[in-house]
Amino acid sequence: MTRIAPAVLLAAFSLAANAVEVKSPDGKVAVDFDVKNGVPTYSMTFDGKTVIKPSTLGLELVNANDLMDGFNIVGSETSAFDETWQPVWGETKDIRNHYNELLVKLRQTSTDRFMNLRFRVYDDGMGFRYEFPQQKNLVYFVVKDEHSQFAMNGDHTAWWIPGDYDTQEYDYTESRLSQIRGLMEGAITDNASQTQFSPTGVQTSLQMKTDDGLYINLHEAALVDYSCMHLNLDDKNMVFESWLTPDAQGNKGHLQAPAKTPWRTVIVSDDARDMLSSNLILNLNEPCVYTDTSWIKPVKYVGVWWEMIGGGKQWSYTFDLPSVKLETLDYSQTKPHGQHPANNENVKKYIDFAAEHGFDQVLVEGWNIGWEDWFGNSKDYVFDFQTPYPDFDIKMLNDYAHSKGVRLMMHHETSGSVRNYERHMEAAYDLMDKYGYNSVKSGYVGNMIPRGEHHYGQWLNNHYLYAVTEAAKHKIMVNAHEAVRPTGLCRTYPNLIGNESARGTEYESFAGNKPSHTTVLPFTRLQGGPMDYTPGIFEMDMKKVNPNSQGHVNSTLARQLALYVTMYSPLQMAADVPEVYNRFMDAFQFIKDVPVDWDESRYLEAEPGQYIVAARKRKGGDDWYVGCTSGENGHASTLSLDFLEPGKKYEATIYADAPDAHYQNNPQAYVISKKKVDAKTRLKMKAAPGGGYAISIKPMK
Amino acid sequence: MTRIAPAVLLAAFSLAANAVEVKSPDGKVAVDFDVKNGVPTYSMTFDGKTVIKPSTLGLELVNANDLMDGFNIVGSETSAFDETWQPVWGETKDIRNHYNELLVKLRQTSTDRFMNLRFRVYDDGMGFRYEFPQQKNLVYFVVKDEHSQFAMNGDHTAWWIPGDYDTQEYDYTESRLSQIRGLMEGAITDNASQTQFSPTGVQTSLQMKTDDGLYINLHEAALVDYSCMHLNLDDKNMVFESWLTPDAQGNKGHLQAPAKTPWRTVIVSDDARDMLSSNLILNLNEPCVYTDTSWIKPVKYVGVWWEMIGGGKQWSYTFDLPSVKLETLDYSQTKPHGQHPANNENVKKYIDFAAEHGFDQVLVEGWNIGWEDWFGNSKDYVFDFQTPYPDFDIKMLNDYAHSKGVRLMMHHETSGSVRNYERHMEAAYDLMDKYGYNSVKSGYVGNMIPRGEHHYGQWLNNHYLYAVTEAAKHKIMVNAHEAVRPTGLCRTYPNLIGNESARGTEYESFAGNKPSHTTVLPFTRLQGGPMDYTPGIFEMDMKKVNPNSQGHVNSTLARQLALYVTMYSPLQMAADVPEVYNRFMDAFQFIKDVPVDWDESRYLEAEPGQYIVAARKRKGGDDWYVGCTSGENGHASTLSLDFLEPGKKYEATIYADAPDAHYQNNPQAYVISKKKVDAKTRLKMKAAPGGGYAISIKPMK
Repeated sequence: MTRIAPAVLLAAFSLAANAVEVKSPDGKVAVDFDVKNGVPTYSMTFDGKTVIKPSTLGLELVNANDLMDGFNIVGSETSAFDETWQPVWGETKDIRNHYNELLVKLRQTSTDRFMNLRFRVYDDGMGFRYEFPQQKNLVYFVVKDEHSQFAMNGDHTAWWIPGDYDTQEYDYTESRLSQIRGLMEGAITDNASQTQFSPTGVQTSLQMKTDDGLYINLHEAALVDYSCMHLNLDDKNMVFESWLTPDAQGNKGHLQAPAKTPWRTVIVSDDARDMLSSNLILNLNEPCVYTDTSWIKPVKYVGVWWEMIGGGKQWSYTFDLPSVKLETLDYSQTKPHGQHPANNENVKKYIDFAAEHGFDQVLVEGWNIGWEDWFGNSKDYVFDFQTPYPDFDIKMLNDYAHSKGVRLMMHHETSGSVRNYERHMEAAYDLMDKYGYNSVKSGYVGNMIPRGEHHYGQWLNNHYLYAVTEAAKHKIMVNAHEAVRPTGLCRTYPNLIGNESARGTEYESFAGNKPSHTTVLPFTRLQGGPMDYTPGIFEMDMKKVNPNSQGHVNSTLARQLALYVTMYSPLQMAADVPEVYNRFMDAFQFIKDVPVDWDESRYLEAEPGQYIVAARKRKGGDDWYVGCTSGENGHASTLSLDFLEPGKKYEATIYADAPDAHYQNNPQAYVISKKKVDAKTRLKMKAAPGGGYAISIKPMK
Repeated sequence: MTRIAPAVLLAAFSLAANAVEVKSPDGKVAVDFDVKNGVPTYSMTFDGKTVIKPSTLGLELVNANDLMDGFNIVGSETSAFDETWQPVWGETKDIRNHYNELLVKLRQTSTDRFMNLRFRVYDDGMGFRYEFPQQKNLVYFVVKDEHSQFAMNGDHTAWWIPGDYDTQEYDYTESRLSQIRGLMEGAITDNASQTQFSPTGVQTSLQMKTDDGLYINLHEAALVDYSCMHLNLDDKNMVFESWLTPDAQGNKGHLQAPAKTPWRTVIVSDDARDMLSSNLILNLNEPCVYTDTSWIKPVKYVGVWWEMIGGGKQWSYTFDLPSVKLETLDYSQTKPHGQHPANNENVKKYIDFAAEHGFDQVLVEGWNIGWEDWFGNSKDYVFDFQTPYPDFDIKMLNDYAHSKGVRLMMHHETSGSVRNYERHMEAAYDLMDKYGYNSVKSGYVGNMIPRGEHHYGQWLNNHYLYAVTEAAKHKIMVNAHEAVRPTGLCRTYPNLIGNESARGTEYESFAGNKPSHTTVLPFTRLQGGPMDYTPGIFEMDMKKVNPNSQGHVNSTLARQLALYVTMYSPLQMAADVPEVYNRFMDAFQFIKDVPVDWDESRYLEAEPGQYIVAARKRKGGDDWYVGCTSGENGHASTLSLDFLEPGKKYEATIYADAPDAHYQNNPQAYVISKKKVDAKTRLKMKAAPGGGYAISIKPMK
């Protein structure tokens, strides 16, 4: 369907002299905009219920008059849009972008400056952004802070992490808004780089549920050339206000008109599953800018990684050097400590395993010189991204991988030293071209260099996108860890195939994640883009992996399988080590089977913090995959398989928690059964506490 | 002469239990080092006179024990060195590097950390630096400040500019040290980027003269991967202390052992001319690192520049755009304002002029898109360094230049947006290769981006050197304006052929320079490296150049000629416009004749603030050139030409101020005369106030 021509209707929907309204195509979502006492104000309802009470908008500027008040509406236009587009990769083959739009033009009388607000209202929510047209009296301006309010209509339940300029790697806390302040201190666990700003500051996306059953999600879309938004709560009045990430000088954004902010988004429904299936964030982003996307392909991978994260082995090569200088580094003078898994023999082993079991790529961390002192030293020239360790033969290993139909996956840990990364980026990407790498996992562990900048400030957001667009010139896909949380840019730049930007599986090894963690992440972190969660851990008792570890993976094995379905991502790692998988080859079969790209996706059941059940159909195929992840209480339900093609017969292989399974005491107890099913089948399923189940459903021949 | 093997002499020169001394080869300069109450202390004398009273050394660290006291000497070594080397370009063919060295090894008992101090003592001064050997208890450390003192033995006269983290473009003030505080405010004139730090803070190099006739110069050599040093004066006790430039967080340096600071230098003599002829700063730098230097050649150039600086014309192309975005810029939609001298016809005119008069290159500023809003907007993506304006045909003009035996000189104004410059640097240098440019004038006008960093901090010093070493890969020479003042790195990287980094000729157009300015600059700014002063202005009344201007060039025409001799530089511009030179072709002949590279140089007469008379012999030739620049009082003297080859006959062409010349009232009054001279000749010469003279002395056939 194509775009309907815009209709210019001055105050056609006006409710009062200065007010305008726009509704969703189905009429259930309504957004009202007004200028009250010169202050831009909006509100939102869903099905007649208040989602956002009247909330003000505006920007405070540095050394210039603020854009907070003194406004009049000088024009408004509404239009409708309806188009279906196909993502390069995704949960569904088609995505419908259907909205009604309201563009309000404001003029600040005393300064003769213009500011527009654009609202796009969908059946499942809305987004709005500020726009600053080219104009005489507003050219270059510096944002002191943005003051976009989101006034909540009650003391909602929220799933939140502490607001922080440098990390998102926190467990989620479920609490009422009024409890955030008291729970904040306990929610802040240690991180290599962290900077909180308020006892009631939280990050987006923020998932909430009202007492009358509305689910509300706040986030942003299309974060380009701007500072990342957090939300600061006035917990007397239950009003959230945007709180941007500062730069090294404390300013929050440098803009040049014509300019626009990212979209501030509100997804709403009375059905939790709509939070998960919403495409609002992607739809607000610009279409793909690449003419050729044939080189962008979802990736299933294994890797030399958990041996270090879980197994306690090293990225480094030697303990002989207290510190290294890449300019003068000579490993031939040192003694290897023998705990370096990124070596020729071990990598070949992973390549063999990947080839045998149908994986696309093998990630190798610790392949390059410099790891001896990479962490915590604010080191500028920390890596060169090109020189391998003496025991990593980059040519031989890539040739070997290719001979087996597998690729190596590159690793660029930047250690937060971003000028250094940019200086080496061209050579690093050239090296990847030379040896046949087409994807890179990048990282930004530790405090940023340029010192004073934060991970989520405008400066770094510009860098992350630069790394992606430069990679595209080399037909390279990027999976950026510790970068800013995604905001749907993967629609525009689909070689951004993943981010971490949340607390991932590695924390199961460090400190454990809450067993409900993966029942929250899709509501929160996965809005805006997939996560490289790296699931698939089969050995939960970390002491068996590393005698020095106290860790425990708070998940059953069956739930680990389910995550390949419930945690949608075009990039999926089977993160454990081959030796462990070899002991559970029957369970591993699910990981081998599960696709990473889909034609259809259905969220069958969902409640944040409790359970998620999803079903997906392989892209270009007829097989379906179902996954369930649950929290502390487990989850029992009856699944209807009515998404299957009527009249067709399938064989379902069910990987479920054993009846006595439990994430803590008995995680590896699973039962695999086969069953003939069809669209009429109803399955009684039960997930253990911190457990789940995974089902592959393949048409019978 | 070759290096004498080091002699390890533990306390061989010791004066007391803990004290050591090292003297210059001729014995006149003595440096004593001691640890008094655990504090490293040094002092210096020249010919028995105190140059530096006992002064302490040390570093204050961030979040770590300071390196200020608690030291013992655990070893010392002395050695001697004597080697003559040939610079790629310079004032003389040979440079003798002859010193005695003292290396003192200190241990801080309580922390078991080691710090060395290395002193090199020359006949004309000394340098010292801190060294931090590889060691267990000092690996990564952050400098809060360096506390190197230079205690003066009296209220010396000094020629100083205000200490500033971002600019050196101040007129020099001549005063006693005790007067600095009272004169500071008046000394601070406006600049696009400036940050003072103390009412008694000054920059290096600092030139002083004691009441008993000693000249003392303080500076630094080999500023690599460190913050630039200013001097803060305790004006009760007349003690200078190092004051480094902070980064965005207020820290002053990030070091990783093994590390060394730059050399802190003290040049001393009872003869002012020795200040100018000293090679101490170059000698302390590392030898040239390039194996091939055949592509590095001194340059004499003209350029499209004064038309804008003096003439009020524009770098930009149009007035139609309040601001530009390079991504979407389309000049075809705009109307050119017609004041853009960087256009095809005009540039060809300069090429013709250069070819006719034997100049090597033609600088063109304003050739590239983006100048409409480059200044004062803290704009990140301000230039792309590649795309010409519609009226600048980069291929045609370079071909045209080459057909005439001339090159164009590239211009990279960065507007202080340094990440942007580094992102484009490879492509920018490639473009230069493609069109046959081999030299670039770069600029850093305005506040730095990354915001919060300063022009002279460690971050930017690293960048300036990066730009030079990257340029070398393309066989490109660099002339960096607004960069950190040079510290002799041109010995190591001789493609760094110039810096501005001081108040240059452009200020004659803006506000006028003091008529004595060029009698001070060689004492101060020229220590450490040449200056692209861009002299040769023949029209002093700026109103004749630009009706809107009130400016006046505070110099006689004859003195402008002299500057090509007195302001040594391998890069010299004839900065005025061809139309003006055409009116004074007889005087212009000197500029045409004067070389830019020398076998010999003599400073005949010199007094800071008063006069400088220099004589130089062409590299590989027999002709000599003499120049005199004088201050407010003019200068009369009798010159001995005994530097000429005995027995040889020469013809001297003397370009002198007319008897009634004066920089203010009658600057263009000059007299040209010819004279047969030889080594026995004595010339009675007179320079007007703010005047001078230039003499070319060519062997008679």
